[in-house]
Amino acid sequence: MNEALKLSNEKRIELAEKVDSYVRSIPDFPEPGIIFRDITTVTQDADGLQTAIDSMEQLIEWMKEDIDVIVGLESRGFIFGMPIARDLKKSFVPVRKKGKLPCDTIGQKYDLEYGQAEIEMHIDSIKPGQKVLIVDDLIATGGTIEAAIKLIEQLGGEVVGCLFLLELAGLNGREKLKGYYVESVVTYEGK
Amino acid sequence: MNEALKLSNEKRIELAEKVDSYVRSIPDFPEPGIIFRDITTVTQDADGLQTAIDSMEQLIEWMKEDIDVIVGLESRGFIFGMPIARDLKKSFVPVRKKGKLPCDTIGQKYDLEYGQAEIEMHIDSIKPGQKVLIVDDLIATGGTIEAAIKLIEQLGGEVVGCLFLLELAGLNGREKLKGYYVESVVTYEGK
Repeated sequence: MNEALKLSNEKRIELAEKVDSYVRSIPDFPEPGIIFRDITTVTQDADGLQTAIDSMEQLIEWMKEDIDVIVGLESRGFIFGMPIARDLKKSFVPVRKKGKLPCDTIGQKYDLEYGQAEIEMHIDSIKPGQKVLIVDDLIATGGTIEAAIKLIEQLGGEVVGCLFLLELAGLNGREKLKGYYVESVVTYEGK
Repeated sequence: MNEALKLSNEKRIELAEKVDSYVRSIPDFPEPGIIFRDITTVTQDADGLQTAIDSMEQLIEWMKEDIDVIVGLESRGFIFGMPIARDLKKSFVPVRKKGKLPCDTIGQKYDLEYGQAEIEMHIDSIKPGQKVLIVDDLIATGGTIEAAIKLIEQLGGEVVGCLFLLELAGLNGREKLKGYYVESVVTYEGK
C-alpha cells in the first residue's frame, strides 16, 4: 500500500464531475421521489467507458498491490469488475443470484424492500487468505454488499475494499459496511 | 479490415487448448447427457482471465478497426464484453433480460427449451450505421444471439461479428447465425 497515491479532494471532484456528465438520471423511476441513476449511458459512450474505469482504478491505485481477487456482483458488477481485473492482472470471481452457479456453493440471504433474495459463490472461488476487492456499479442500502462480504469471509477471504462507480448517500449504505474501506467515484446526496 | 492478421489453424489450436485447460467441465449437469462448461474457473485464475480475453481479441484483431460498439448479453456476456470494449476503446452496450433497463426499450422474444424469454435494448443504445460486435461466453443453440441481432438491426446497427469464448457445436448455433461472421476460441463437439 502506498498512501502517497491517495487522491486529493480536487482530483476526486474532477473525476466525479466527469463521470456524472455521462450518467443519465431518471426522475420518479421506478417510483415517485426516486431518481434512477442509469449507467448504460456511461458505457455506451466510448469515452465515458474509459473515464469510468480509469476513475475507479485511480481510487484504488494506492492499494492495488494489496489485492488478489476482484469480486463482482451480478450483473452490473460484472460490467465494472472485469475490466479492472483485466487491467490489474487479478482474478475475477462472480457473486451470482441463487441457482446460477453450477458447482458447490454457499449462499447468503439479504433483505429487499419486499421479501428476501439470495446470492451465491462457488466454495472454491476464493482461497483462504486471499485479499478481495468487491466491485459494483452502485451502493444503495448496502444490503447485497453486506451479504457478499459474509460469503467472502466464510470462504476465508479478507475484504480489503469495496469500490463503486456511484453512491446514493441518502440510503446510508456505508453504515452497513462500517469497518470496511469504501470508495465511490460519484456521490449523490439523495436516494 | 486486415485479412493478413487472421489466425493460422495452428495458432487457433494453441489458443483453444490453453483456454480449455481452465474450463471446468461438469458431466450430467443440469441433466444426464449434458456436459456443463463452467467459465468461472477461467476468470478466477488470473492467468486464465488474461488468456481468455487475449484469445478472444486475437480472433477479431484483423477486423477491430471495423467495430464501433461491443454488445454484451446479460450476464456472462458482460464478463467478456466489457474488457474487450475497454481494450479496444469502443463503447459497450448491454442486452438485458426484460424489465431491467430503465428507459425506452425494444424487446425480442426467443424460444427456450420450455416456453419463451425476452431480451431488451435501450432504443438509443445503438446509432444507425454503427458496426457491432456481439460478445457472449458461449454459443449453444444461438437463440439468444439471433434475438439480439434482430434488436441491433432494428436500431439500425450492422452486426459485423459474433465472438464467443466457447462453442457447443452439437447444438448447431451457427446454423441460426448463417450469413454472420462467427468466431469462438474453444469448440466442443457435443452438447
